[in-house]
Amino acid sequence: MTGVDDTGETVTGAAAPGERRPPASRIVELPGAFRTWCGDTVPGVRVAYESWGEPAGDGSNTLVVFTGLSPSAHAASCERDPSPGWWEAMIGPGRALDTNRFHVLCFNSLGSCFGSTGPASLRPDGEGPWQVDFPELRIEDMATAAALALDEFGYSRVHGIVGPSMGGMTALAFLLRHPGRARHLLSISSAVGAAPFAIAVRSLQREIVRYDPQWQEGRYPPEQPPVGGMRMARKLGMASYRSPQEWAQRFGREKVEKPDPGFGPRFQIESYLAAHADKFVGGFDPNCYLYLSRAMDLFDVADHGQDRDEAMARLHYLESACVLGVESDILFPLEQQKALARGLEGAGVGTEFHALPCIQGHDAFLADTDSFAPVVADYLRRI
Amino acid sequence: MTGVDDTGETVTGAAAPGERRPPASRIVELPGAFRTWCGDTVPGVRVAYESWGEPAGDGSNTLVVFTGLSPSAHAASCERDPSPGWWEAMIGPGRALDTNRFHVLCFNSLGSCFGSTGPASLRPDGEGPWQVDFPELRIEDMATAAALALDEFGYSRVHGIVGPSMGGMTALAFLLRHPGRARHLLSISSAVGAAPFAIAVRSLQREIVRYDPQWQEGRYPPEQPPVGGMRMARKLGMASYRSPQEWAQRFGREKVEKPDPGFGPRFQIESYLAAHADKFVGGFDPNCYLYLSRAMDLFDVADHGQDRDEAMARLHYLESACVLGVESDILFPLEQQKALARGLEGAGVGTEFHALPCIQGHDAFLADTDSFAPVVADYLRRI
Repeated sequence: MTGVDDTGETVTGAAAPGERRPPASRIVELPGAFRTWCGDTVPGVRVAYESWGEPAGDGSNTLVVFTGLSPSAHAASCERDPSPGWWEAMIGPGRALDTNRFHVLCFNSLGSCFGSTGPASLRPDGEGPWQVDFPELRIEDMATAAALALDEFGYSRVHGIVGPSMGGMTALAFLLRHPGRARHLLSISSAVGAAPFAIAVRSLQREIVRYDPQWQEGRYPPEQPPVGGMRMARKLGMASYRSPQEWAQRFGREKVEKPDPGFGPRFQIESYLAAHADKFVGGFDPNCYLYLSRAMDLFDVADHGQDRDEAMARLHYLESACVLGVESDILFPLEQQKALARGLEGAGVGTEFHALPCIQGHDAFLADTDSFAPVVADYLRRI
Repeated sequence: MTGVDDTGETVTGAAAPGERRPPASRIVELPGAFRTWCGDTVPGVRVAYESWGEPAGDGSNTLVVFTGLSPSAHAASCERDPSPGWWEAMIGPGRALDTNRFHVLCFNSLGSCFGSTGPASLRPDGEGPWQVDFPELRIEDMATAAALALDEFGYSRVHGIVGPSMGGMTALAFLLRHPGRARHLLSISSAVGAAPFAIAVRSLQREIVRYDPQWQEGRYPPEQPPVGGMRMARKLGMASYRSPQEWAQRFGREKVEKPDPGFGPRFQIESYLAAHADKFVGGFDPNCYLYLSRAMDLFDVADHGQDRDEAMARLHYLESACVLGVESDILFPLEQQKALARGLEGAGVGTEFHALPCIQGHDAFLADTDSFAPVVADYLRRI
């Protein structure tokens, strides 16, 4: 399989069956070997990305978008791939991330399976995918891979970084490891370090995947992944991404048309979860999922200083920050958004904080763009 | 194996290996065949119970305690079994459920595995346990089994019913199906019907157990139950029983001493969940768990009238009610406690409602008896 670089040229390099690069995602190959946060080495690292709007050429009008755990770089549609992106309503001419003004650049996270190098990628010797032999990944590695990709583009500094969920962690890691390389930060439903409830949920999701006999200690044939485990892990994910209030409004105790006489679905909420799980399972490599999920648990701003406060103080160079949180978020609760905003203020960064009253929980930035778009647009208009 | 009846005499009848009756639990055998809410028939139904304090003989000083999903009838220690019960701090002379004044009677739920008949019990022909051939159980069946047991004791009416969690649902079912048989109701962290978030969590727990290859469609050898699935289901349970706030306070991001280099535990919260899961797994039969869990999802007060309001109105005969809820409960949230209290008030029942500020979530009635005891004692003193 061949990839396409920034100029539209094809690039050499094979992709494993577990990789699922969207048609418009381009590839930048990082020079030399990539050194991870934990000290391992990965040769031939590739980073997939998509972009919208005209680049100024030096990054000065670029907004970098880091994604949550599961999306690809296909955040919005484009000529080469008109299918809607995962943040379609937010990116485009006149939209919140206004491509008339900004060059919006979204990276597929290192460790993911949508074009960037990760456990689903082929080993350097081409002998099958890395799988669990891939070295431990941290959020810091996703940040550094992006920074190295920006080097390749010749962008010494970008205008701003936008990061929802895991992407907000990646943004913080980027700003801490590569000081001065962005002027503004927009953090959405993220955290300076995962809370134990979030760790518990993700740890259990990983255990569920690993307990599936088809996982085979991570050495499943790519065409026979542990779909049952992934399906259940995704259902648990949904229970943490949305909110009890939203489900009470949307589903209540509505029954399915043909209730299962045994232990199968009887309620609409069960069908809803099953449909979401089925959609996810085909699309995401289980080992990549394990790696990214673990990286989220392990991320802690405190690792970048003597403690969290001292680490946050290193972000003093930011010209502004905006922290958005959602009242009904149980995975990255409002308290964590407030703590992040306080940390940025403590660093002397002019920071605005908004608690949005959406009922869609952690997923509100995807599910309730009507509420997010005006706040995001307003902040970006002012920077 | 032999059981012991109310008088301390041994009773005949075999128990299956999946049954785990505590030493002090006595058995009452229900006469004739038990007819379930769904119309099935179960012969030879036995109900396990324990009691504390002197019975008046007619139930007039009896407080019936219905349990949550997992406990046995051993709610408190006694001479025959000095091990602490699941509500040890609440039951005894001078305690909230004051055995100087009340005769406290706790039933093991029908369908459970601690002495009462359920999927882990032997079939009528003695040929192995019922397992998944046991008919579908509803909360109403647990209530009716208790009512029939009270018939055997000659208690036409009891002073009050106390029900936490699933026990609160059982209490409502008892009061609706057997009107006039109790004078007072104390409901703790329960609901008139499960919310979709709770259904989602429990449905996923059941799926996790069923996906364990050792479940074998419910026909596992009793000595080889699906422990892996049960362990993960219990961890998910813990995440819904406690609260994110409590874990943030207790565990934060504290690491384990020897972090697993792979996908195993790195944080204390993971060890805590593992320890809780291990404790549960040996003690509870997986099929019984599936039956009780499903029954909780299916319970709806609305099934006892034209709608919820009309059904609740049938409880007008209660002399008083007390509804307790916990602010941090995500499984049976405060909104549901308020709805229950409103329903009782709508029925003309003098109802008091307390929202306790405990941080232990749904489990607070077990974990924070210091907060519960005074409120419960005060209510019971006045009835």
